[in-house]
Amino acid sequence: MAAPLSRRDLEFLLYEWLDVEELTTRERFREHSRETFDAVLDLSEDLATKLFAPANKLGDQNEPYVGDDGKVVLPDEVESGINEYVKAGLMAGSFDEALGGMQLPTVVNRASSAWFQAANAAMSSYAFLTVGNANLLAEYGSGEQIDTWVRPMVEGRFFGTMCLSEPQAGSSLADITTKAQPQADGTYRITGTKMWISAGDHELSENIVHLVLAKAPGGGPGVKGISLFVVPKYLADGTRNDVALVGLNHKMGNRATTNTLLNFGDGTHSPTTEPGAVGYLVGDEHRGLSYMFKMMNEARIGVGFLATSLGYAGYQASLEYAKVRAQGRPVDQKDPASKPVPIIEHADVKRMLLAQKSYVEGALALGLYCSKLVDIQQTSTGDDHERAGLLLDVLTPIAKSWPSQWCLEANSLAIQVLGGYGYTKEFDVEQYYRDNRLNPIHEGTHGIHGLDLLGRKVVMSGGAGLALLAETIGATVEHASGNADTAALAEQLRTAVDHLATTTATAWSTGDPAVALANATAYLEAAGHIVIAWMWLEQLLAVSDRTGDFYDGKRAAARYFFRYELPKTRTQLDLVAALDRTTLDTDPAWF
Amino acid sequence: MAAPLSRRDLEFLLYEWLDVEELTTRERFREHSRETFDAVLDLSEDLATKLFAPANKLGDQNEPYVGDDGKVVLPDEVESGINEYVKAGLMAGSFDEALGGMQLPTVVNRASSAWFQAANAAMSSYAFLTVGNANLLAEYGSGEQIDTWVRPMVEGRFFGTMCLSEPQAGSSLADITTKAQPQADGTYRITGTKMWISAGDHELSENIVHLVLAKAPGGGPGVKGISLFVVPKYLADGTRNDVALVGLNHKMGNRATTNTLLNFGDGTHSPTTEPGAVGYLVGDEHRGLSYMFKMMNEARIGVGFLATSLGYAGYQASLEYAKVRAQGRPVDQKDPASKPVPIIEHADVKRMLLAQKSYVEGALALGLYCSKLVDIQQTSTGDDHERAGLLLDVLTPIAKSWPSQWCLEANSLAIQVLGGYGYTKEFDVEQYYRDNRLNPIHEGTHGIHGLDLLGRKVVMSGGAGLALLAETIGATVEHASGNADTAALAEQLRTAVDHLATTTATAWSTGDPAVALANATAYLEAAGHIVIAWMWLEQLLAVSDRTGDFYDGKRAAARYFFRYELPKTRTQLDLVAALDRTTLDTDPAWF
Repeated sequence: MAAPLSRRDLEFLLYEWLDVEELTTRERFREHSRETFDAVLDLSEDLATKLFAPANKLGDQNEPYVGDDGKVVLPDEVESGINEYVKAGLMAGSFDEALGGMQLPTVVNRASSAWFQAANAAMSSYAFLTVGNANLLAEYGSGEQIDTWVRPMVEGRFFGTMCLSEPQAGSSLADITTKAQPQADGTYRITGTKMWISAGDHELSENIVHLVLAKAPGGGPGVKGISLFVVPKYLADGTRNDVALVGLNHKMGNRATTNTLLNFGDGTHSPTTEPGAVGYLVGDEHRGLSYMFKMMNEARIGVGFLATSLGYAGYQASLEYAKVRAQGRPVDQKDPASKPVPIIEHADVKRMLLAQKSYVEGALALGLYCSKLVDIQQTSTGDDHERAGLLLDVLTPIAKSWPSQWCLEANSLAIQVLGGYGYTKEFDVEQYYRDNRLNPIHEGTHGIHGLDLLGRKVVMSGGAGLALLAETIGATVEHASGNADTAALAEQLRTAVDHLATTTATAWSTGDPAVALANATAYLEAAGHIVIAWMWLEQLLAVSDRTGDFYDGKRAAARYFFRYELPKTRTQLDLVAALDRTTLDTDPAWF
Repeated sequence: MAAPLSRRDLEFLLYEWLDVEELTTRERFREHSRETFDAVLDLSEDLATKLFAPANKLGDQNEPYVGDDGKVVLPDEVESGINEYVKAGLMAGSFDEALGGMQLPTVVNRASSAWFQAANAAMSSYAFLTVGNANLLAEYGSGEQIDTWVRPMVEGRFFGTMCLSEPQAGSSLADITTKAQPQADGTYRITGTKMWISAGDHELSENIVHLVLAKAPGGGPGVKGISLFVVPKYLADGTRNDVALVGLNHKMGNRATTNTLLNFGDGTHSPTTEPGAVGYLVGDEHRGLSYMFKMMNEARIGVGFLATSLGYAGYQASLEYAKVRAQGRPVDQKDPASKPVPIIEHADVKRMLLAQKSYVEGALALGLYCSKLVDIQQTSTGDDHERAGLLLDVLTPIAKSWPSQWCLEANSLAIQVLGGYGYTKEFDVEQYYRDNRLNPIHEGTHGIHGLDLLGRKVVMSGGAGLALLAETIGATVEHASGNADTAALAEQLRTAVDHLATTTATAWSTGDPAVALANATAYLEAAGHIVIAWMWLEQLLAVSDRTGDFYDGKRAAARYFFRYELPKTRTQLDLVAALDRTTLDTDPAWF
């Protein structure tokens, strides 16, 4: 079986391009070195390929179920793989040493996680949610909350969730109805139903720490009325809290991640005579959504990585197949008695491999770039700190959405390379495709991120976000302009960025948000392609004049992206700039 | 549950646009009338929604298996639904009355089939393969073969298959190794292994008639050495023939269609002491592939219909959901206390519905148009006959590939409209998406059809195929140019067709097929979009100045297609015309 990621590519991106060793000169990472980074990558590759990958199909074909005792049953191999991950201390990767963490740079920790995401997307999500939950609480929780809930999560004894959606409120969190009633002892009683809660119940950990959005009295309507609570499955003294598993959702993919409908405070497991699950307020009342954005933004980049890793695994699998499967002859070979050639020699198969390569390596570059921005933001002050944060804000909807769209497309191409075989369960690519189809939906749908990008991110602070993005890409373009090999691509990218900027202004020229945002999805997709083209130009600069197959492969994928993909942005941006009203003017009754 | 097709749309396409009633003036169809057509559509809608649709999820979740007795087991509901279909006489739709058929126009018969394909794609394929098989044998088989095999298929007592692929030979039929050894009695003994045989074994019919490609001695290498044989599961006297089920393939979708690995002549069921399964030659030796193209071309258009029907079912399901699911508020509504609106009022949801509508109704129009060409070809002589056949030849790769790509995309959009719910097995859209992913693979992969279109169809007979397509579209453009409502779209389509013509010439300008065909897939996709734009302009002409929601919906979908979709062809054709060598110049070692 093909390795689900390329270690060579990871090393190129981390060391030859992003120069993550430079981070070890910063105070926070001074205990680290290339050696400690490599040790984590070695360990991750080893555990992911030996324990996560073999359980992937198994977890898909043996969906979690609720046993007679009401407990969730997962295949043994899924449980034991996750246990080994915890034992290896990998949950602690990026946390502060003071919390028992390894204090790794986020960029290295993400590279480590990508191995597990590529090997077994569904299994990887338990850790992913736990880390995001613990990061939020480490930042906004009280000292007692950190000791009680964060430390056991860093140790991997407790797992975490994020409980936002409800059956009637998914994209629109303003409409949640879960209630929080303050008690005399300072705790709250939580009542309501939460939907789509990944890892919402299982027996993989001693306890499950739910982070729950709920409305406390006095907050007013809409998102301003939302507060954030820790609601554990078991209270600190071991008493069962009133969080009841109502049912498991049966999904097309990602099946080994339990996905649940949970009732809070329905009396099933009531710890006291008062109704409601016991909840502990995080930070201040009515500011819950702003805290949750800490976890959501991290989760959005994480979803981009998940999509990227699945795309990468499919690319590797179809590449391996294309090298050994003999079928057909070159189009100019007329002798039917000649030997069939490996399909990797056919132009259209090369196209499908180049497309996959350009999508998955471009997306991985973006994910790691964003992760390094987190590290820079965390270890700098003043202007550097502000700029890293602003750029990260602008890039987040793209880092989430672009891989979710194009690495899914990569998975479709992987199936196509394998033909009929790819459509069967004997191979892995059909599962990657099913697993990946989740990613344009959760953590903000594709459409929501279009609204976020064009409606907020590029216009906030008087357009400072877009200006910074254009300036940052401009620096790459400037650098690439001086080189004969990259000058033409630099010019092509410059034109595209200019087009994005003028289109943004035109979109908002009427001042009517309905008109400006009518084609926000097309805008998001065009901006994404431009950002990925930038990532390819960046990689070409790192390639420089190095020779060898690996670097020639980077050059070919970059060429593919600029010739086949970047030109698509022109028609998309033209549509946005035309202030096209087709969707606005279509009456629902006409369908 | 939403109806999987729109009867209103079918009636518009058949009667208001294609004027299929005109066909009843032709000798072959003179027994028919609008009433007989409607009766078939009524019956089809009724059986499809009452018996096929309810078995759809069931057939997906209870995959066929081989029982202890070696027989294939399918859910009872699948068996009984197919039995009722047969009892209703629907297998006989388009066959000659002399063979016991209804002698329906192909276009009406296809509209009937679309109901079953939309309601239950996997169940529909048994009939689809049987009809294709019987049509081939009715044309090329001997009188005895027609009596022995075709009549029972028309009655629905026997089912049929097409056995082309082998484990080592899928796209490249030249490399099949199944052998046919002539016997003194004029029969042949067939030995070899066939892969991906849909409906290759089951207990749904008294017998299974396999049409098998095999190599008889003396044919030389390549496709010229291929002959075609009838190889029944049971011989005419009821003796078991030596066709053995080796295994069932486990697929991502289309699970209720058994898909098999078959051994011919491995001795498992040997009827005689001589090795090999008994086979009967169809037509002449070594001309098998040309006969098989009769069935393949029909199957290709049929696959396009299958993809279209699945896309349509998803569109209808997501439309129904979008009308009732309340979520969020208009972007310019700032009051969080205001009521949430049905999601169909959001611009991006309307975009996803318009996209689906434009894809599935455009594809259905193309499928029916091609089907009417079959009727015209069959009922005319001379120039009319030739032109209908030539246009059908050119359109076939598009009619197969375009719906397989874009109605799959429609299914993805349907999932997106439903959000998390769409990703679960509680709703139907995730199954449509899985079922539909097969269609770009079988009956010639997407890439193969690109080569067929640019490498053969548009250049054959000195470019007569492309010239005829351009001329036919030109007539529509001319007609639409005279109308203020359609003149701008007509001009846009004229430009696109001109671009296609010049690009075709440029692609072949070097005379090197490797260069010409390097971007054949981009060419196929651009040509497909242009043809679908033509279908929309045709529909607009049929809409004319009629008023009402239905017609406004057609106008909106046409507008969507011309504004959001047709412009994509410009960059695709520019790529082809640039004779881009990126794929050719990429060394396999670089990946």
